[in-house]
Amino acid sequence: MTSTTSPLVFLEAIHQEIQQTEYGQQPAELYDPIGYIMNLGGKRMRPLLTVMAAYLFGDDWRKALKPAVAVEVFHNFTLMHDDIMDQAPLRRGQPTVHEKWNHNIAILSGDVMLVNAYQLLLDVETPYLKKVLNHFSRTAAEVCEGQQLDMNFETRWDVSEDEYMEMIKLKTSVLLGFALELGAIIAGADDEASTLLREGGINIGLGFQLKDDLLDVYGDPVKFGKQVGGDIIANKKTFLLIKALQLAQGELKTELTGWLRATEFDKQEKVRAVTAIYDQLGIRQLTEERINSYFTQGFTNFGQVSVNPDRKAVLTDFTEQLIGRES
Amino acid sequence: MTSTTSPLVFLEAIHQEIQQTEYGQQPAELYDPIGYIMNLGGKRMRPLLTVMAAYLFGDDWRKALKPAVAVEVFHNFTLMHDDIMDQAPLRRGQPTVHEKWNHNIAILSGDVMLVNAYQLLLDVETPYLKKVLNHFSRTAAEVCEGQQLDMNFETRWDVSEDEYMEMIKLKTSVLLGFALELGAIIAGADDEASTLLREGGINIGLGFQLKDDLLDVYGDPVKFGKQVGGDIIANKKTFLLIKALQLAQGELKTELTGWLRATEFDKQEKVRAVTAIYDQLGIRQLTEERINSYFTQGFTNFGQVSVNPDRKAVLTDFTEQLIGRES
Repeated sequence: MTSTTSPLVFLEAIHQEIQQTEYGQQPAELYDPIGYIMNLGGKRMRPLLTVMAAYLFGDDWRKALKPAVAVEVFHNFTLMHDDIMDQAPLRRGQPTVHEKWNHNIAILSGDVMLVNAYQLLLDVETPYLKKVLNHFSRTAAEVCEGQQLDMNFETRWDVSEDEYMEMIKLKTSVLLGFALELGAIIAGADDEASTLLREGGINIGLGFQLKDDLLDVYGDPVKFGKQVGGDIIANKKTFLLIKALQLAQGELKTELTGWLRATEFDKQEKVRAVTAIYDQLGIRQLTEERINSYFTQGFTNFGQVSVNPDRKAVLTDFTEQLIGRES
Repeated sequence: MTSTTSPLVFLEAIHQEIQQTEYGQQPAELYDPIGYIMNLGGKRMRPLLTVMAAYLFGDDWRKALKPAVAVEVFHNFTLMHDDIMDQAPLRRGQPTVHEKWNHNIAILSGDVMLVNAYQLLLDVETPYLKKVLNHFSRTAAEVCEGQQLDMNFETRWDVSEDEYMEMIKLKTSVLLGFALELGAIIAGADDEASTLLREGGINIGLGFQLKDDLLDVYGDPVKFGKQVGGDIIANKKTFLLIKALQLAQGELKTELTGWLRATEFDKQEKVRAVTAIYDQLGIRQLTEERINSYFTQGFTNFGQVSVNPDRKAVLTDFTEQLIGRES
C-alpha cells in the first residue's frame, strides 16, 4: 500500500469533495441548513466505505467520490428528518435544523437533500447508472421502512428479537451495505463481488448496532461519550432489553417489568437494578456472542471477494478499527 | 384521430397504471398513506401532459405511462409535505395525511414517495435515462425552492411582481413543463422540440396560476367551487394584490392597507371593499391581459413544434379545455 491510498488520503479527498459540492443557492432558508448539517462533522464512514470498495477493484477510486458524497448527503437527509420525528434538540452537540430554523424548513431542506443525493449519483457512468439507482432507491425505501418500524416499536411491548434485528437492518445496516456495493459496482466489479460486499456491510452494520446497544449499558463511562445507561432510563427497546424480557422468569420478570412501568424513580438506581438483572440473565455474554457472530460473518463475506490482498487489507483494517471502537 | 388516442383513452390508461403501481407493503403505516393520497383523485393533468407529449412523436405512448405516473407521484409527494407545512386539514374534501395519521407518518410517507417517483422513472430507456433524471432532479429542487419562497412571502409585504412570478413558476409551472418535456424525450423528440414543449408548459402554467388568482375574486360563485374572496379575506399575496399595492396611490392606498391591517372585520364587507379597489385600479383587465399573454406565448411555443397537426390538436384541444375552466 502506497501513501496515496491510505484511508487518510481517502478521507481527505472526501472532505474536499464535500466542501466543493454545490447543493443550491437561493432561497438561503432552503439551502443553508444543508451546508450546516453536512458540516457538523461525523466519521464519514459511509463515503469511506464506498471509496475503499472502489479501490479494491482498481486505482481510479476518485471516480467514486461524487457517488460517495451522495451516500453521505442521503445519510444526513435521514438525520435531518429523523431529528424532527424524534424531537431531538441536538445533533453532534449542535442545535438540530428544526431547532435552529424551524420544522417546515427542516422538512423542505431534507426533501431537497434527497434530490441532491440522486443528482450526485447521476455522476455514475451510464453502463452502471440504472443498477446503481435501482439499488439506491430500494435501500432508501428500506431506510424509511426501518425508521417507521422504530417509531412503531416505541409503543409496543411485544417486539420480538427477529423484528428488532429486521428494524436495525433496515434503519442502519442496509445503507452501509449499499455504500460498499456502490463503490464496487462503479469500479466494474462483478455481481458476486458487489453482493458479497453488500452482505458483508450489512453484517458488520448489525454487529455495530448491537455493540452500540451493549456499550450503552456496559461501556466505559470515560470512553463512551454519552451517559451510560441512557437506554435503560428511557426504556429503549434495545437488543439487551428484548433478550431480557424474553429470558426473565418469575421474580426477575416481575422486577424487570416493574422498572419498565415505573414513572418516578432514581435514574442511577434504575440503571443499577436493570443492569443487575441483565447480569443475572447473562445478557452481556449473549450479546457479545451475537456481535462477534455478525462481525465474523461480515469478515467471511469480505474474505470471499477475490481481489488483491493488500487492497483488501485497507478495507478490513479500517473495519477492524471501526468495530474496535468504544464510543 | 382514432378512438384509441383520445385524451379519455390516455386518462383511462393512466388510471389503470396508477392502480397497478406498487409503492411497497410493510410497514403499513408507511405505505397506506401513499395509496390514500393517490386515490383522492384529481384531474391527473400532469401524467396526461406526459402521455400526450409522447403521442406527438409516435404511437407508442404506452411506454410513457410509468414515467407519467412518476410525475403524479412526485406531485402528490409535494402535496403531502406542503399540507404539513401549511397545516391544511383537508385535501380534496378529505382529511390530509398528517390529520388522518400524524405528522411523522406524513413526513416519512412523503419521503418514500419521492423515492418511488425516482423508481418509476427508472423505467425510462437507458439512452434517455440520465437526461430525464437530470431534468427531473432540477425540476424537483425548483419545486422545493418555490414552496420555500411561498412560505417566505407569507411574512413579507414588499413582494414584487417579478418575485411573485418567479415563485409561481418554480412552485407550479416548471412541473407542468417537465411533464411535457418528459413525454417528448422518451418518445425520441429532439432537444428543440422537448425544450419548446417545456417552455410552452411553463407559460401555460403561469397563465393557469394567474387565472386561479383571478377566479378567486372574479369567479362565478356557482362554478368556482371554493368561496369567492377567500384570498382577500386571508390577505393572500396574489398577483392581484401585489399589482394593487404597486398601483394604488393616496386615499386608495390608505384604504387598501387599512383592510390588510384590519384584525377584526366583516368578511363580506372586506371582500366587497377590496374588490372595489381592484376595480378602480383596473386590476381585473390587467390580470386578464397578462393571463392571455402567457397562454398566447404557450400556444406559440406549442405551434413551433414540428409534428403532425392532428396529433398536436389532441394536446392543444386539451390545453384549451384546461384554460377555459372556471373552477
